[in-house]
Amino acid sequence: MSRLVNRRVVLAARPRGEPAPGDLRLEEAPVPEPGEGQVLLRTVLLSLDPYMRLRMDEGPSYAPPVGIGEVMVGGTVAEVVASRHPGVREGELVLAPAGWQDYAALDGQGLRKLDPAAAAPSTALGVLGMPGLTAYAGLLAIGRPLPGETVVVAAATGPVGSAVGQIARIKGARAVGIAGGPEKARALVEEFGFDAALDHRAPDFPDRLRAACPDGIDVYFENVGGAVLRAVLPLLNDFARVPVCGLVAHYNQAGGPAEGPDALPALMLQVLVRRLVLRGFIVSDFADQEPAFLHDMGAWVREGRVRYREQVVEGLERAPEALAGLLRGENFGKLLVRVGPDPLG
Amino acid sequence: MSRLVNRRVVLAARPRGEPAPGDLRLEEAPVPEPGEGQVLLRTVLLSLDPYMRLRMDEGPSYAPPVGIGEVMVGGTVAEVVASRHPGVREGELVLAPAGWQDYAALDGQGLRKLDPAAAAPSTALGVLGMPGLTAYAGLLAIGRPLPGETVVVAAATGPVGSAVGQIARIKGARAVGIAGGPEKARALVEEFGFDAALDHRAPDFPDRLRAACPDGIDVYFENVGGAVLRAVLPLLNDFARVPVCGLVAHYNQAGGPAEGPDALPALMLQVLVRRLVLRGFIVSDFADQEPAFLHDMGAWVREGRVRYREQVVEGLERAPEALAGLLRGENFGKLLVRVGPDPLG
Repeated sequence: MSRLVNRRVVLAARPRGEPAPGDLRLEEAPVPEPGEGQVLLRTVLLSLDPYMRLRMDEGPSYAPPVGIGEVMVGGTVAEVVASRHPGVREGELVLAPAGWQDYAALDGQGLRKLDPAAAAPSTALGVLGMPGLTAYAGLLAIGRPLPGETVVVAAATGPVGSAVGQIARIKGARAVGIAGGPEKARALVEEFGFDAALDHRAPDFPDRLRAACPDGIDVYFENVGGAVLRAVLPLLNDFARVPVCGLVAHYNQAGGPAEGPDALPALMLQVLVRRLVLRGFIVSDFADQEPAFLHDMGAWVREGRVRYREQVVEGLERAPEALAGLLRGENFGKLLVRVGPDPLG
Repeated sequence: MSRLVNRRVVLAARPRGEPAPGDLRLEEAPVPEPGEGQVLLRTVLLSLDPYMRLRMDEGPSYAPPVGIGEVMVGGTVAEVVASRHPGVREGELVLAPAGWQDYAALDGQGLRKLDPAAAAPSTALGVLGMPGLTAYAGLLAIGRPLPGETVVVAAATGPVGSAVGQIARIKGARAVGIAGGPEKARALVEEFGFDAALDHRAPDFPDRLRAACPDGIDVYFENVGGAVLRAVLPLLNDFARVPVCGLVAHYNQAGGPAEGPDALPALMLQVLVRRLVLRGFIVSDFADQEPAFLHDMGAWVREGRVRYREQVVEGLERAPEALAGLLRGENFGKLLVRVGPDPLG
């Protein structure tokens, strides 16, 4: 073992609003001993994702909250440094829910092995991983875009949003992206092939969105909530579909009362009159689609039809500030933390 | 023809909030002449329905608004008093969109003929008509209750709500009704066979609703909106379905701003975390289900498995105040206006 201590980030306090520096604490602990059937993993890359903010709150959600003093949850690319599981060998690279720490002892069962010759291991946390499947299943199973329809996606430079837009285009739909800032909007068109892209911070954003969607909106892939949703609502066509994947604009307010006016009646009336479908989902609801996803998305990435960006922050100690930045929309592409050296060099 | 004038109720002004006495005007006009292919209808019964309030407002909805000075729209049971259509005979009783008036000249094509020997003609406006199909299609195609699941319906003594609860029970689900007042709640259990029923005006209504739904709510048939929806939301189970059929609590506020706090973020978070489906619909979306509906519902009514109530207001001149009462939730069962004498006596 390369270190005698396990650095780990634990939840020190439940945030009020935006996570503050004291809410997450870096601490040191002994490296765990793998039990029978377990493997000892050394984290190489940690994925940062918006859902983590929800897990910091008390109260019912789709997964239990992280306990105070417990290690923050997260997906990782990790190296097997010791194995007491017959199916896993030392030196192998795996996708594992090892969390925000250097070392984890996990059951060897069910870890996805990564073949660096087939795809860059980092993609297992992004375009070929959870965010990619989220985009693929949410868009195709709930959004169901038809050729010629207009698909709007917010947080469009994130790993989910950029995949949504590109898959929409592969299916023959128009893709309109919404992002924070003119540079991001430009990159969506120039780099990711979106038909149009808009900066939601522009003062005339609602008007620009209307102009960018002359035939209305048939699918709104909801990643954000808040003001973007309010601008989208009046543009939705009859029978439009709204896969509700995330609400990053509200994660830092969860539980607190929201200032008025009350937008709920207007939403419900729009649902009724336009016969909308709003459907929430999380990626695990579509686990059965993973083989089809890996097949299709693997091909699209190899063919260059789906592009992706990654942004890597160096060092576990910088993960808390990186998550706060993610929640403010500061990243571009898949946000990763390099926790330990890449065994491939 | 029994009268020389056609009494009709026209939209005099667009209501602000609740319809006021001056918004609808009773006036007299000549009896129309049926053109080639048309029939002249004499209205016997006029159906009053919540959607009529929406049609009084300007602005986009699922149907164009009634114009100022135009006759209010509405379904009727009418007698054919003259026919210039080969398929329709004088003296026949039909279901027709003749509106709020004594006489209408309409295309003879597509009128549903009513057989008084098969079912009371009034049921074509209620349990075996638009409200019944609304309940049947919305519950079965969108709500999809499974045996043992809990179905909650608001406005449960209305013609749609009472059918929803009874169909839910036929399908093996638990039916919980919400209505305005303890008498209505009692009748839902005693007369319509609901498993439980609640008065939404009770100060501890949210607690009572929770107690009446110990296993949570799997289907919420939305007829009302407002405070009832807010009480239902925290009780919805994972993967619950919400057919959005009506929002009578909001019809009188349409267009106006709603006071805060803003309940939209909480709703969207619930949609996400509980993976809810909200889907708006109107009955015409399910026109293809009418034959199956008439078959099933006809049998259930004959067998006494689906019961219904009707409330008849005498005289077209009382229709405006009756509609205002309907929007305040004052009716029980299907609200009808007797416009002219029943040809059957």
